[in-house]
This record gives sequence, structure tokens and C-alpha cells, in this order.
Amino acid sequence: MTTPNDLDLSGERQAKNLQVENVAGLRRIGVLTSGGDAPGMNAAVRAVVRTAAFHGLETVGIRRGFNGLHDGEMGLIGPRDVANIIQRGGTRLLTARSQAWMTPEGRAQGAEHLRHWEVDGLVVIGGDGSFQGAHLLAQEYGIRVIGVPGTIDNDLYGTDYTIGYHTAVQTALDAVDRLRDTGASHERIFVIEVMGRHAGHIAVEVALAGGAEEVLVPERPADLEAVADEVQRSIKRGKTSSIIIVAEGFPGGAEGAASAINERIGEETRVSILGHIQRGGSPVARDRVLASVLGRAATEALMAGRSDVMVGEVGHMLNFVPLEHTWTRRKDVTDTQYDTAKLLSI
Amino acid sequence: MTTPNDLDLSGERQAKNLQVENVAGLRRIGVLTSGGDAPGMNAAVRAVVRTAAFHGLETVGIRRGFNGLHDGEMGLIGPRDVANIIQRGGTRLLTARSQAWMTPEGRAQGAEHLRHWEVDGLVVIGGDGSFQGAHLLAQEYGIRVIGVPGTIDNDLYGTDYTIGYHTAVQTALDAVDRLRDTGASHERIFVIEVMGRHAGHIAVEVALAGGAEEVLVPERPADLEAVADEVQRSIKRGKTSSIIIVAEGFPGGAEGAASAINERIGEETRVSILGHIQRGGSPVARDRVLASVLGRAATEALMAGRSDVMVGEVGHMLNFVPLEHTWTRRKDVTDTQYDTAKLLSI
Amino acid sequence: MTTPNDLDLSGERQAKNLQVENVAGLRRIGVLTSGGDAPGMNAAVRAVVRTAAFHGLETVGIRRGFNGLHDGEMGLIGPRDVANIIQRGGTRLLTARSQAWMTPEGRAQGAEHLRHWEVDGLVVIGGDGSFQGAHLLAQEYGIRVIGVPGTIDNDLYGTDYTIGYHTAVQTALDAVDRLRDTGASHERIFVIEVMGRHAGHIAVEVALAGGAEEVLVPERPADLEAVADEVQRSIKRGKTSSIIIVAEGFPGGAEGAASAINERIGEETRVSILGHIQRGGSPVARDRVLASVLGRAATEALMAGRSDVMVGEVGHMLNFVPLEHTWTRRKDVTDTQYDTAKLLSI
Amino acid sequence: MTTPNDLDLSGERQAKNLQVENVAGLRRIGVLTSGGDAPGMNAAVRAVVRTAAFHGLETVGIRRGFNGLHDGEMGLIGPRDVANIIQRGGTRLLTARSQAWMTPEGRAQGAEHLRHWEVDGLVVIGGDGSFQGAHLLAQEYGIRVIGVPGTIDNDLYGTDYTIGYHTAVQTALDAVDRLRDTGASHERIFVIEVMGRHAGHIAVEVALAGGAEEVLVPERPADLEAVADEVQRSIKRGKTSSIIIVAEGFPGGAEGAASAINERIGEETRVSILGHIQRGGSPVARDRVLASVLGRAATEALMAGRSDVMVGEVGHMLNFVPLEHTWTRRKDVTDTQYDTAKLLSI
Repeated sequence: MTTPNDLDLSGERQAKNLQVENVAGLRRIGVLTSGGDAPGMNAAVRAVVRTAAFHGLETVGIRRGFNGLHDGEMGLIGPRDVANIIQRGGTRLLTARSQAWMTPEGRAQGAEHLRHWEVDGLVVIGGDGSFQGAHLLAQEYGIRVIGVPGTIDNDLYGTDYTIGYHTAVQTALDAVDRLRDTGASHERIFVIEVMGRHAGHIAVEVALAGGAEEVLVPERPADLEAVADEVQRSIKRGKTSSIIIVAEGFPGGAEGAASAINERIGEETRVSILGHIQRGGSPVARDRVLASVLGRAATEALMAGRSDVMVGEVGHMLNFVPLEHTWTRRKDVTDTQYDTAKLLSI
Repeated sequence: MTTPNDLDLSGERQAKNLQVENVAGLRRIGVLTSGGDAPGMNAAVRAVVRTAAFHGLETVGIRRGFNGLHDGEMGLIGPRDVANIIQRGGTRLLTARSQAWMTPEGRAQGAEHLRHWEVDGLVVIGGDGSFQGAHLLAQEYGIRVIGVPGTIDNDLYGTDYTIGYHTAVQTALDAVDRLRDTGASHERIFVIEVMGRHAGHIAVEVALAGGAEEVLVPERPADLEAVADEVQRSIKRGKTSSIIIVAEGFPGGAEGAASAINERIGEETRVSILGHIQRGGSPVARDRVLASVLGRAATEALMAGRSDVMVGEVGHMLNFVPLEHTWTRRKDVTDTQYDTAKLLSI
Repeated sequence: MTTPNDLDLSGERQAKNLQVENVAGLRRIGVLTSGGDAPGMNAAVRAVVRTAAFHGLETVGIRRGFNGLHDGEMGLIGPRDVANIIQRGGTRLLTARSQAWMTPEGRAQGAEHLRHWEVDGLVVIGGDGSFQGAHLLAQEYGIRVIGVPGTIDNDLYGTDYTIGYHTAVQTALDAVDRLRDTGASHERIFVIEVMGRHAGHIAVEVALAGGAEEVLVPERPADLEAVADEVQRSIKRGKTSSIIIVAEGFPGGAEGAASAINERIGEETRVSILGHIQRGGSPVARDRVLASVLGRAATEALMAGRSDVMVGEVGHMLNFVPLEHTWTRRKDVTDTQYDTAKLLSI
Repeated sequence: MTTPNDLDLSGERQAKNLQVENVAGLRRIGVLTSGGDAPGMNAAVRAVVRTAAFHGLETVGIRRGFNGLHDGEMGLIGPRDVANIIQRGGTRLLTARSQAWMTPEGRAQGAEHLRHWEVDGLVVIGGDGSFQGAHLLAQEYGIRVIGVPGTIDNDLYGTDYTIGYHTAVQTALDAVDRLRDTGASHERIFVIEVMGRHAGHIAVEVALAGGAEEVLVPERPADLEAVADEVQRSIKRGKTSSIIIVAEGFPGGAEGAASAINERIGEETRVSILGHIQRGGSPVARDRVLASVLGRAATEALMAGRSDVMVGEVGHMLNFVPLEHTWTRRKDVTDTQYDTAKLLSI
């Protein structure tokens, strides 16, 4: 529901059926997954490897993200090696956060491994932290890198959605639906904490799709006393129960909100904290389609000579933005989405 | 994954946060669901009713589509009447196909009921058949009508996606994932029939997201002998199993494809025909969000004086097209989508 | 997995196909759901109502448990009124905890309502608290009552399983499976809190079915330092991740266990607290079958003249125990189950 | 819901916490999965391997059932090799139907492989066909074999439930629930075909748990005209829709039943044929628990010197029956189950 004007459209947008010519003269590319894992990463790796094979390129799979690149944990993988993984959560290439990559020496060693393996271009699937690592590789060693947005938080500038986001929303939504059953039968006020340390994308979409009464996100200040009063009013208006979605980044989290409400209106509240459950599970269709399209596009963009950019989707079209923009610019929850969630909870 | 150039962009597109003024001077609107039911219809009805209430309008709920409009099965519904339905499959307003509506007398009677109930505008949630009925009402009686695309088939011109489509895809995809388990352990060739009498949207997206080996759709001719040979080659290339998705509108359906393959290469095939299972189930997050956004937009567009148009979403922005275009123009499966599914199945 | 010798087999056990004769001469029975709601309560109500109708009896549905009985919120319901609810979570009859029922005056008023409605026997679906209320009604007013075990906790003496337990286990298990995805890719130690204030039935079965490394329940003391050391050893033995299931009734809960482990071995832990999510959702097949069988049996037992007993299932046979036993005797987690979970986590 | 008297209780039954002494002096056991795959087979293999390791034994994993035993596709597997598979559908050891095993020469070669690998006992996870193969091995070569019931059909004598059955039931039940949504909104008569070539266990339980109007199974003759009339009557009684469950082994299957009904009462019917979808998917909790318990018991029974028997569960206790009984005796759908499904569909 983000609108194109919230995003970088100054750059190039192009139809998805790229006319691919291997202008970069690639023979072998690398692929890694980095940062927190997200459902659909496997589908993206599969798309990279098979698109490469389709165009006659080889692929080197690198394990445990930049950590594994630093340590040289890598090897050739072919189309059969990525069979039967499109439906799997997590990432078969594993992922990790790397201390070594923070240092010039660490990156030098990684670059050396890429040279040794004759890798001409690298696809990095991850979030903004991962893209910073990729950017340094491009800047310092002239290695071609393309970023593919893979994070459940959907907080990356330059794409409407990130791979894994739809699955995380669906997982949290299933939890909300379950609360709704018991809320309609017995209990009154539920507070449920979803992921989102810096952005409320998951929280707002879950609130909208789950018909929640309130949503608390890091981007918007909220007066908990006013929220409590509103909950009380809605119960008086005839609502049998109230569901409040809280992003983990909202000050105090679900526990804080629950005690504030309980203190204010004296009604008991029930807390659920979903935590890392939202990272797992088989990716939903939308995440697999997005991962397939972007994995293909990343490989073909490398062939077309692109580098130091992330490929995303804006308005269902491919969108390329400089990697740097992904951490210097913000993509916040939009007013439209937030307001619609509020409007429909009356 | 349809690209904007496949769709009608000549018309107006606008950001979603409409500045709403009740220029049409509405006081009461009607809402009905028509044609085959689709998951998310309840969420759309909820959005219509609550948006109306938010803007101070009343809503009349009409049961069993144009049939119920003809018979006068209708009554006022308020925000509490649509509580706790956002997560329900099917449609609480019920739906039906109407013979009576085909005749001028039938429509006259429906128009009379609307006058009697003082309904100033009508939201029709359904597919192209339903929109033909709505269009006649607008043309013959000057009644304001807005269409909201609700059908699992996603075959409506003027919107990237229809309400219910994402849930149907997910349901079929879950089935494909299950076949994948047994295929990896034991059996070889599976043929699975999904819905889509005239268009292969579900089939192609399920093939792409499910990593299927082949997809057969009404829009594309296919040589079943060539398909059989390709299946045989892929088994020789090392694939443990082959999954073939067939849209019900492909000549011969799943049974036809299965026997052709069996005859050609002598391997046993296993057939699953999902049928109406794909119509049911709790709507996935994307269908609920789309239904909420379009239900709100339909109500606000009526207030803004619009009529005889369908409101859809193209590139995540609202898109209005004349109702007539929804059945005179076609939205077929795109080459990009179809080709990507093929490319990634190597 | 509880063995019959853990349970009361001294009482009568009988095959399920009761030869039913209406020896009690019933004409009208009542049904209510009480205490915390549990998935499958609707299926039990449906079975009571339809079995009654099959045998020519009428049924009065009482809303909001003993609260509604006290307030006279009741009315006749027939087979069509319980259509299409077998698959719904929660309870359509609603439930509540009742203060009024604690007083003799409160119960007198409830008994008066039953007389007024000419109810000859009452089926109470709930847990031990509800059965205490039912027992008083039988003792003080000679009203025939049969208990049906409905609670997700499975802590009722006299039955292998309670209605709702299997669904709660499945819901928690789905969460564990999701953690497993991300645990295999990235993170290390997960602590997940499941329901069970006084008994660890859910926790132990989830641990066994989820392949968890550790399980902490109220019935068994556990040395958290030893647990932490074991986790560390298992990681050294090659486990990529550790999942620890904690029943809410274990002292300190998930948060307590997580900080103890973190403090001891210095590894970060991730906490999920499922909370009331486990109460909701469509009942799984086993809960619907159990609810159908026990709902039928309760009605037929009333007809056969039984009263002040709970009907449960032991070893797949009907088992009747005095209501009083359900709160005076304990059904704890068995050694076999607990030990198998431990043994298989090596 | 089968009652103990339907089953062989003449044999030994014992509590699950076997006092295990390695009286057989085993050092190394083998394990294979055979016949059609079933969800939970992986959990059973895991239990066998880890129980063996716990007691100080080694395990040889044999791939592709008796086929792989014939071909010598085998190797040592340890506790880490079965990590993270408890939640997976299918079988990692793969399965196949073996022609070679039908011949004395074929079995001789398999026995030779077992000798070569110094396997002292063998656990065979599968159905009655697989147990015939196992029995011959025991009879002809004196090799200790224990059968573990793994098949979705639940048609094995000597156990209340087989591994995989509960998952298959749940998968089919989810499909029925989806039909219910659309049935309540629009369509009328649905016919859904579930697995069960020789027995109606899945069909009857799905009918009971799904609240279906009719169920057609191979064990019971049914007059389709009477069924059609009953459907018509139930629609007249006020049912909005009718769902008919057909086991694949019922003459004519779903298609046959659908046309008979359509012909008789002139109403359109909608057919779904689930097929092999029911074999796949992550095993539900009950199947994992059963697989864990029986896998452990099989290993410990081998240690205790048992052979040529299957270990099952009757009334939640372990039950051992001669392998031969599993194909010479029948376990049909019980009257109780069938009648309860009928009674509650009024």
C-alpha cells in the first residue's frame, strides 16, 4: 500500500522481461544470505542459481553470509542443489552477523576468496546492514554487487515489499485470528507484540488485516492513557473484545502497554509475545514470487553490468536504487495504511 | 506481477488518501456480493459499512446478490453487524446467480426496492457478470454503482489483483507443497488441477511459487507429447519428481493431461483435482488488506460522485475503470510471469 | 500416552454404542459451556443438541456459563442452530467465570430458572471449577448433571484427553516448528512459554513432538544451571540450536529461564510467549471427534439416569467418574512421556 | 475410537516404560521405510536411531526400502543425522515398492547385505505389504525384525492408529472446512474423495469431524439413490449445503457418486479429488508422538529379544501382534464411529 511517491522513482524503472545480454562478460557469480534470516531467502537463492545456469553462468554458494565469505566457506552449486528448497523457511546457505567484516583486513580476505574462486559478481540477499557490507566490497575492491531485499521487517527504502515480510505478517495474523476466537467467547483485552524494532510495517498491516482496535508503532507517538480510554469506550459501544497490536520497537513493548491499560481501566489484559516465530515457516506465495522475480532480476542485472544497487519492486515493476540509499533514506509506515486501520476499527 | 502497461492507465489514478467530501449528498448506500463467493468478500463488506458509518452514512445490506435485490431481502446494517467477520471465508451476505436480473422486469423490481429503501448508491462486490448487472442498473435507472473486484480467478481487467485470488493461490500452493513431500520420497509424476476456466492466473502463480515443472493454461496452446518428453528428460536430468499444474480451462483438464503423459512415457501419474476447496478458507492478509482498501475507496468514490466504474489497484494505487471495460477487455497471464515460471523450473 | 493404571478404572467402562433407553424419562435437557473456552466446545454442544433431537428430546442452550444460568439467559435450540459450528474455535454459547454461583442464593436462582424452563438434566462442558458448580447443583437441588471435559490444559482426572488439548498442542507445535527454521539458519537458543498453570501436559507433548532439547514443567523441579550446562553441551555436540519449552506454571516462566541460561553460559536467548493464542483456532480433528463422542455420550448417559459424573475417554473407551474426583485427584504428566521426550532429544 | 475388543488383546500388552535389558546382545540394528510414504516416518526413524544410541547401539540406515536393502544402499547413521527431521513430511530414507524382494534370490541378496553390515535386528516402518517382506526375512533367514505401522490408511490390524493417519485426516478435514465456507455462501452439494482403497477409516473420521452429511466407504454398501434422496430432504429441512465424503475404494469413487446424485435430483454437484496431497505435509502432533513412542518401543523390543511382530498402540498401551496377523486379519471401520457420524449429521 505504499504509493510510488513515497519511494525513489527518480532512478531507472524497467519492465521485468529484461532483454539480457551478458555485457559484463560474466562467467561465474556468487550468492550469499546475510543478517537475520527471512522466509523466501531459499527461493531467492534458487532463482539466482537457476537464472545463472539458464544463461550459461556458474554459481558459487557462500555459507554463513560475510562470515563465510571471510572464512572461505564456499563452493560451486548447480540447479539440482537448489531443488526442493523453494518451500522451506530459513536459509540453506545459513546466515550470521560478521565482526570480521567490519575491519579492512576482514574484507580484504573476503575479496581474496572471491578472486580465488573467480567470482565476477555477487548477489547479497539481506537487509541494510548486509548492504553496507556489500557496498564496501564494491567501493573498495570494484567487485560487482547487487542487493536483494530479504528481511521480514520491510523497512528497506527502494522497494514496496521485502522478501519474508508477507510471511511474517501472515504468521502474526494467524495468531490474531486465534485471539479473536477466544475474545469472542470469554476474555476481553489482548495485547500482542509483533516484530519491528525500528518500523511498524508488520504491526500496521496485521492491525489492518486482523481488524485490531489499536496499533502502537515506533514511528508514531501514542498516549497510552488515551488508548486505554478508547478501549474502554469501544467495549461500552458493544465490542466483545479488544485486540491491540504493538511493534516491539514501541517504547515499553507489549508488557508496558498492557500494564498501562490495566492500571488505567482496571480490566485484566492478556499478553502474547510472538518473537522469532515470525521469522520461520514456509514462505507464503507472495514471498516466493517476489523472491523468484528479484533473484532472477539480480542475476540478469549483474550480466547487464549493474553494480552497487539493490533491485526491488515498486508498483509491481523492477526498481533499482543505489545500495547507499537503503540505509540513508527511510521508508516509514504510510499515513494511508495507518489511517485506514484506524478508520475500519470503529 | 502484471505491469501497468497491460492495464488501463488512461483513466484517473489517485493516491489512496482521498480528500472525501460528500459531493453526491449521499445519506444511505447499499452493498451486495454477487457471483461465485471469494475469500475477502466479508472484509470488503465490513470496510464499506464502517467507512460509511465513519462519514455519517447508513448502509443497507442486500442478501443473495441481485437475487435478493430483486426479492427485497435487505435491511440496515451497522458497524457492529460486521464485527468479527474480517477473518471469515465465504460471504455473510450470501451470493447467488440471478435469472430474474436478466429481464427488464426483474431489474425494475430491484430498482424499486432501492428507491423504497432510499438507497442513493450501491457497491457491488463480484466479477464481470455481476458488473454487467450493476452497469444495467446505472444505465437504465441512473442509480450510482461502484464495482469492487471480488473473484478468485483474477481475470478482471483494470486491477492487478482481485479479492480472493491470493487466498486461492495459497490454498493450491499448500497442496503442491504436500505433493512435493511425497514426490521427494516415493512417487514420480503429479498432475494437479487448479481453478481458472478462462484464465491461467492461479495456475501460473502456483507454478512459479510451487516450483512446478510444467504449467498448462487456457491462454497458451501446449503440445502434451512435448510436455511428456520434457518430463521424461527432467527425470533423467536428476529430478526426483515432476509436478504439473493444469488450469481447469485447459482442454482435457488434469485427467486429459495425465493420460496423455502416461500414454507417451509409460510412467504412472497421480491426479489431484482441488475444485471448490480453493474458494474457501480464511482470507490471507493480502486479500484482507486489498478488500479493506477497495471497500473504503468504493464508499468514498460514491460520495465523490463517481458511478458506473470499478475501483481496483494498479501498481499499489487506486485505479478506476468503466464497468464496461471489465468484460470487454481482457487481462491475460503475462509473458514475464509465464516465462519466469518456465525459466526457474530447469 | 497416559496408561490406564494412572486413571480411575474402578468405575464403569463401557463400549461407546450405548443401548439407549430413556429410563430417566427426560423431555428436555440443558447445555452450557463454562470456565476458559477451549476449541471443540462448539462441536460438543452440537453433539449434545443433535443427540437429544435424535432421541426426541428438546435442548435449552444457556449462555455465559453459570453466570447466564443465574441470570436466566437461555432459550430452546435445535439441530439447525448448531449447524456450521463444528469447525469454529471458541464457544457460541459464550463462557464466563461466575461470582454469583459461589453463593447459595446464586445457585438457588439458577435452579429456579432450570425449573421454569422444565429442564430435566444438564450437560456442563468445562474444567474442574465448572464441575464444582455442577456438583453443587446436583447435591443441593437433585438436578441431574453430567460433566464433559473441556479445557486445553488436559489436567482433568478421569479422561486421557480433554477437549481442546490437541488443538492447543498443535498450535504450540506450529510455533516450535517455525523457531526450528530460523534456529537452523541463524539463531541459537529459544525459550518458548506454553500454557499450563498447574500441569505440564501441553509442555511435555510439545517437547516430544517438537523435538525440543529441554522441557520445564510445574510438576518437576529443575536446576536451571544444569539445564544451561546441558544446552551448552548439546551445542558443543553439534546441535545448531536449542529449543526449551516452559510451562507457564514453572517458577519464573520463560523469562526467568531465559535470563538464568543467558547468565550462566553467556549466550543470547530468544523468548516467545504464546499466551491465549493457544485457546483459539479451529479445533483439530481429534478434538472434534472427542467432543462429538463425549457430547453424544453425555446426553445418552443423562437418559440412562446417570448424574453427578463426568464422562471421559480412557484407552478409547468411555469412562465415568464422580465429578468430585476431577478436582480431588490429580492427573500429572507421566514418567513415560517425560522420559521419552528427554531420551529422544539426545 | 476403535475399542480394544476389535483388536488382538490376547497377546502381551505392557506399560511403555520398558525395563530394557539388551538380552538379545545387539550391537547394531537396521532401519528402513517401505511402501507408500506417510507423514511421521521421519519421526519414527529418528526415534529408532536415538533410542539405539541411548542404549549404546549403532544404526544402519537403509534407503528406498527393500529395494535399497537388495541393492545394498545403506550406511551408518547417528543421532545428528536425524536432527531437524521430526517435522518433515515424507521420508528421508526414501521408499519404493520392490519387485526383487518377491523372489528368493532377491531376499537372499538382502540378507547377505545385512550380514555384511553386521546388522543384528531390523526395524521395518510401513504397511502390510512391507510386513510380508519383513516376515519372510525373519522366517527364511532368522533375522530379527520388528514392524512399525506407517501408513495413512490406518487399515492395519493390531493398533488403534497407524503413523500418518492423523495427518491425512487433518489434511482432508481442512479441505472440508473450506468447502463449508463456500457451501454456506453459495453452492449446494459437494462430493469430496479421500484416500482409502480398502478401508474407510479416513473417510469416516473426516465425515465425523467435518460434520459431513453422508459418507461412502468400501466396507458398507450404499444405495446412491437413497443417498440422493436424503440429500434432497436435508436441503428441504433447511441445510444450506451438503458435503459427501467418498473413500476412493467406494465403487465409482467421487465422480460416480456425483453423477448419480445429479441424475437423481437434478442439482449440480461439485467434485474435489484430493489424491496424494493427503500423503504430504508436516506430521501433526499425534503422529509425531505415536511415531516417537513406537520407534522407541521397536528398538527396545529388539533388544528384549522380540521378533516377527509389529508394535502398535491399543488403548494407549503398547501392543505386540505377530506380523502375520497384520495381513490375515482385518480392521474395519467400527459401527460406533460410523453410526455417530450419521447420528450427528441430522
